This record gives sequence, C-alpha cells and structure tokens, in this order.
Amino acid sequence: MKIAVVFGGVSFEHEISIVSSIAMKDVLSDELVYIFLDENRDFYHIPTNTIKSKLFSSGEYKKCDKVTISKNGFFKKAGLLGKDKPIDFDVVLNLSHGGDGEDGILSSVLEFFNIPFIAPRTEACVVSSNKFLTKGYASSVDVKTIDYKYYTKGDSVTVDTFPVIVKPVRLGSSIGVAIVKTQEELDYSLDVAYEFDNAIIIEPFISGVKEYNLAGTKVNGEFKFSIIEEPQKTEFLDFDKKYLDFSRTSKAVEVDLGEELNAKVKDAFEKIYNNLFEGSIIRCDFFIVDNEVYLNEINSIPGSMANYLFSNFDTLFKSVATSLPRKKHIPVTYEYVNKIHASKGK
Amino acid sequence: MKIAVVFGGVSFEHEISIVSSIAMKDVLSDELVYIFLDENRDFYHIPTNTIKSKLFSSGEYKKCDKVTISKNGFFKKAGLLGKDKPIDFDVVLNLSHGGDGEDGILSSVLEFFNIPFIAPRTEACVVSSNKFLTKGYASSVDVKTIDYKYYTKGDSVTVDTFPVIVKPVRLGSSIGVAIVKTQEELDYSLDVAYEFDNAIIIEPFISGVKEYNLAGTKVNGEFKFSIIEEPQKTEFLDFDKKYLDFSRTSKAVEVDLGEELNAKVKDAFEKIYNNLFEGSIIRCDFFIVDNEVYLNEINSIPGSMANYLFSNFDTLFKSVATSLPRKKHIPVTYEYVNKIHASKGK
Repeated sequence: MKIAVVFGGVSFEHEISIVSSIAMKDVLSDELVYIFLDENRDFYHIPTNTIKSKLFSSGEYKKCDKVTISKNGFFKKAGLLGKDKPIDFDVVLNLSHGGDGEDGILSSVLEFFNIPFIAPRTEACVVSSNKFLTKGYASSVDVKTIDYKYYTKGDSVTVDTFPVIVKPVRLGSSIGVAIVKTQEELDYSLDVAYEFDNAIIIEPFISGVKEYNLAGTKVNGEFKFSIIEEPQKTEFLDFDKKYLDFSRTSKAVEVDLGEELNAKVKDAFEKIYNNLFEGSIIRCDFFIVDNEVYLNEINSIPGSMANYLFSNFDTLFKSVATSLPRKKHIPVTYEYVNKIHASKGK
Repeated sequence: MKIAVVFGGVSFEHEISIVSSIAMKDVLSDELVYIFLDENRDFYHIPTNTIKSKLFSSGEYKKCDKVTISKNGFFKKAGLLGKDKPIDFDVVLNLSHGGDGEDGILSSVLEFFNIPFIAPRTEACVVSSNKFLTKGYASSVDVKTIDYKYYTKGDSVTVDTFPVIVKPVRLGSSIGVAIVKTQEELDYSLDVAYEFDNAIIIEPFISGVKEYNLAGTKVNGEFKFSIIEEPQKTEFLDFDKKYLDFSRTSKAVEVDLGEELNAKVKDAFEKIYNNLFEGSIIRCDFFIVDNEVYLNEINSIPGSMANYLFSNFDTLFKSVATSLPRKKHIPVTYEYVNKIHASKGK
C-alpha cells in the first residue's frame, strides 16, 4: 500500500508532528508519501528520501512541490495547459498532532473531499481534543474520570484544597498545564492557561498517581490491544519529554496489573472507543487509584502512532488501513419540492 | 454586507436547506450570493434573481457556474490562461441543514480555508448534531435532559415501560424517529432507526409534553434572545410539517411562561450556548415537565435561521456577522527541532 502521511498543521504541536511522521519510516514497511501542511495552510509534497526535521525549521521545504487538496485527493499544479496531476496513494495517515489534526478540522476536510484516512472521524476528534467534552463523554459511556471544575475566561475561581492541576481545555502535550500548590501560584497559572484557551478545567493533583497507557484499535468488529505501559515520568510529562516521546520507536516494557485491573483498563478502553473512534488507532492514558480505573486523556493521534506499544505495529496498521469505516450513503431526493410543485400545479 | 449563503449538501435535509435558504431573501436586507453544494460535493454559484426550488429538483442548477473552495474563498474557474476569479462576499451563512452543515464537516472546511462564517464552529456542531453527545454535554453544563438509554447496532434492547421514542443519534428533522407503544412495534422501529444510523437513543415518550422554542445568540459578550414560542404540533413534528417550518417567515406568537420559567428557559439556553456556540444563531427546543426545564434538542442551524422568532432578525443578523469569533493565533515554532540540531552539532 501507499500511505500518504499528512503532518504539520497550524498547531502548538507542529514540530512534534514532524518528528512523529519521520519515525513512521522506521516502523512501517509501506511506501510512504509525505504531505506537509505548513503554518499558512499550504500543502507540500516532501520526497521521502530527503525528509528530515531541519528541512522544515529552515524553510527549505518551500522548494518542494506545492499541492492542493480537492475532491478525491491531493494534486500537483500542472503547467499552463496541462491538467493538475493527482498524487498517487491509497490512504492518508493523519499525523498532524494537536490543532488541525486532532481537533476535527483535518478529518472533516478529508471526509469532505472523499479521501480515505486513518484517524478518528470528526466527532471522535472533538470529544478527545477538548478535555471538558472528554469528561462528559467518558461519563456518558460509564468511564470514570478525576473530578474537575470547568471555568471560562472571566469566571471567578476558588480552590479549597491544593495542590491542583490547571489545564486549558483544548491543548495536548501538557502545553499551558501547571501544578498549583498555593493560592499565590493560582493567578499566574490561570493567566498562563488563558493565554492558550478561553476555557480551563481544574482537577485535584494526585501526587504519585500511577499512570498507565494502552493503545488499541478495532478491526472488523474485533478489538486489538497493545501492551499496557507504565510510562516513566517526572511530576508530569513536560513538553521536552513529550517531544522525545513522539519520535519513539523502541519497544516499551509491558506492565502486568493483574487479571482484574488489566481487564478493567481494557474494558474502559472499549467503552471509550466504541464506536465513535472507528478508523483510528488511539492511546488512552489511565490513572489507577484504589483499584479503580480513571481515564486521564484520549490521544486520538498518539505520538508516533504509539507504535512502540505494539509487537506487530506494521501488520496492525495494514489491517486498519484496509478496513476503514464507510460512510452510509445518503440519498439526496426532491420528494417534498416535487410534492409542493405538484400541489401548486407548476 | 454581502452574505454568501452556502446550502444543500449531502444530507437527508438537503431539500429543506433549499427552502430555508430561499426564505432568506425575504428576511435579510443584505445582498445575498447563493452557493449550492450538490450531492456530488460540487459547488455552484446560483444567481440570486433566478433561485427557486425547482432549479435543483430538475437538475437545471448544473447550468450555473461551478465554483471551487480553497484558501480564503470560493473561486470561479478562469479560461485557459486566466487566473481563477474569487466570488465576492464578506461572510458565509452556512445554511446546509443536517449532514455536511450541522455535523461539523462544513464548518471545519470553512475554518480550514480561512473563510469567515455564521454557524457553530466544529465542536458545537458535533455536540448538537449527535443526540447522545448532546445529552452528555447538557449534563456537563448542568442542563437537564429526558432520561435515555443509548444503544449501538447489535446491542440487545429491553424496554420496561411503553410508550418510548426511538431516535437515531445523528439525524435531525425527526427522520427515522418513531413513537413505540408496544413490544411488537419495537423491533420494526429499531430496524428503521438503524437504517439511518448505527447508534440510537430510546427515551420515555411523554404524551402531551409542553414544548417551547427559544432562539438566540451572543454578540460582544451579551445574549440576544428571541421570543419563546410554543410550536403547534401533532404527536410529534413529522418531516412534512418540519419542511413547511423551514420556509417560515411570518412572525411567531410569543408565549409567556411566567417570570420564573421564562428565566429558567433562558438560563438553560445560556448554559448550552456559553461559549461553545459563539458565532452562531441557534434554536433550543425545551420541554417543561413539573416546572422543570429539559433540553430536547439544539438546532445549531435552525430552519430559516429561526427568523420568525425575532422581532429584529435583520439587525441581529448583521451584528452577528460583524462580531464573529476570531481564532487565537497559533505560532508555529521550531524551538525543539533547533535545540536538537544544536545539541547534535548539525
């Protein structure tokens, strides 16, 4: 298969999308076609043999062929009298982390132009990219999350018990997130969070909480899980640490939580995934507190596709790529217009 | 101002979008530019003076100029050597009801191509177009909804107390919805609902429940409400009735629920709207049971923009059009790529 990796995008995670995408060369046996989305929302076709992160930071990518997106694919501009030439690929892998990729914009655009893609569809992007909506969704599908309060810019915020963790609702990779230990720190952390978003959530910060990651997908009605990993972490994952994580290709170490908890984690994953996330490989990050499983966050386009959590990533990826959800055919009819014209006699 | 009305779309509500859009001629004083999205996802520019519903049912619209969407607008194909010509307008009014328009796809596409538009942004479209997500969202913002059970295709369904109302989660205008009075009717209604969607909700059907509609928007931080209407209805609004509703331009009759309930209805509207729905004029449909207000549904792109509920629709529309939310600027940086290259010395 030929996989078009679409990456970059207008996003705080623009550059981790670049390293994440380059990592795909090491873990996928498919032919890769790289399509870069720059900060001006222009697409470029980057030759696979020359791709490296410096190409983008230097602006040199602008020498590559510019492509446009329209019905059924990506196209290279032809000369004056020619016809625009389609880029040849079978399916898109949306690897634009953060804004554009994970907020549903890019999935919608791909859907609109009838381009098959691996990534959550629009609805699933929205519920996972907005932490407030994630909480509501998790609760609807009966998965626990840590208690929280939701505020929008201008609301007065009161915290009874410190420490708390302040998070802008819409950003990933810990951007704008702060652990707040005192009332004095609170105002500053709110200013920082509101720099990034007009809505925030505040949760109690549970020191030393155990975090576990599980990735997975559903192929032809059957769940396929990765191993469960307990990621190494400092107080919480900061952007530098996450950045390195996004280029990860070496295998992770499996943790065994015991039969009951292993099952609980997988059960929570299934409830979250089912069936909004069809067509995607996602990673869910869970906390375990007193033997109960809490969803921390859904990574709808995980760093380097969480390849390092799977023993058979390449095979799994192919099976997802060949069993993407089909949109129901919606017939457009003019039954009522015709009925009205008939009754009006015109 | 010049308003580009984008309508049609791949949707079960394709044709009500047509009548809804034509109704705008009667209620807006702005110059209107009609852009039709057909069932093949091709756009056409329809001259305002010739628009009528028969143009679409007859297929005659295909004689109009085809336009494409790309960065910063809609464009007419130039001749062989010319440059594609932009369609002149100030802001889009997204009036594609149902799929494409209300499910977030079209809002995402407009956002992606940097085209200003009146309609909910992607997140708001998603939470209002999927009834299951609406329930979760309403609960998160502390607005009551009728109890429900959520099922996906293949789940076994048990109903203890009839009558119930069976609804596909993703469709508007009562499509696929059935009131079910007996166990015998249940299987048939499930078959019908699953024809349209792979997920459904089932609610108790409350006979004779009072329904009230309120439309509104927020301009420069201030809520602007319509009157509250008690819509005329049969057992529930069927598609024929709704179809006529979408072309409505004559003023509705205000109902006074008394100070306390009027305030409760507006309070529920504010909680729903704030601040996910900025940039849009929406209509919320509420039930009142035992003096409590329950959200029935959010019409994120209401039929004929609910113009008939406002005394000053034209003025209100202009104020929304000139105060659309701006997306925060997201700077794309290469801080980490540069740091890594510096440390590697290359």
